[in-house]
Amino acid sequence: MKAKVHVALKSGVLDPQGKAINHALHTLGFPAVRDVRQGKLIELEIDEKDPAKARAAIEEMCRKLLANPVMETYRIELVE
Amino acid sequence: MKAKVHVALKSGVLDPQGKAINHALHTLGFPAVRDVRQGKLIELEIDEKDPAKARAAIEEMCRKLLANPVMETYRIELVE
Repeated sequence: MKAKVHVALKSGVLDPQGKAINHALHTLGFPAVRDVRQGKLIELEIDEKDPAKARAAIEEMCRKLLANPVMETYRIELVE
Repeated sequence: MKAKVHVALKSGVLDPQGKAINHALHTLGFPAVRDVRQGKLIELEIDEKDPAKARAAIEEMCRKLLANPVMETYRIELVE
């Protein structure tokens, strides 16, 4: 089963990388852009047929490694 | 209008960061995980009401800054 994990900074957390992208886009001629934030997208494959078990395992991976629950939120999307 | 841009490495391109995550997950007790790849998720807001125009502008941003078309693919998702 394939899964995608979307990891994003919580809304109150400063995002200097997003700010840099925002600034660069303005310089490149896209003044309409506002509020850019950069997160991570982790795609993985797991040997587990049961979607509920796969999701539970990935939840645990997020808590232990993939996301920092203090600063980041995550969303798990099972693909097939 | 809000948009999400998913940037991922093309399938033939080596992904050492994904490999490191894969290895770390095995060490943490998730042997069922295979083939981890890490990409970027860029969320932005654009002052443009027309979805077609917003998408065209974001396509151009991807080609000029957000993605490296030699190594990466991107997918644009308009949120509202």
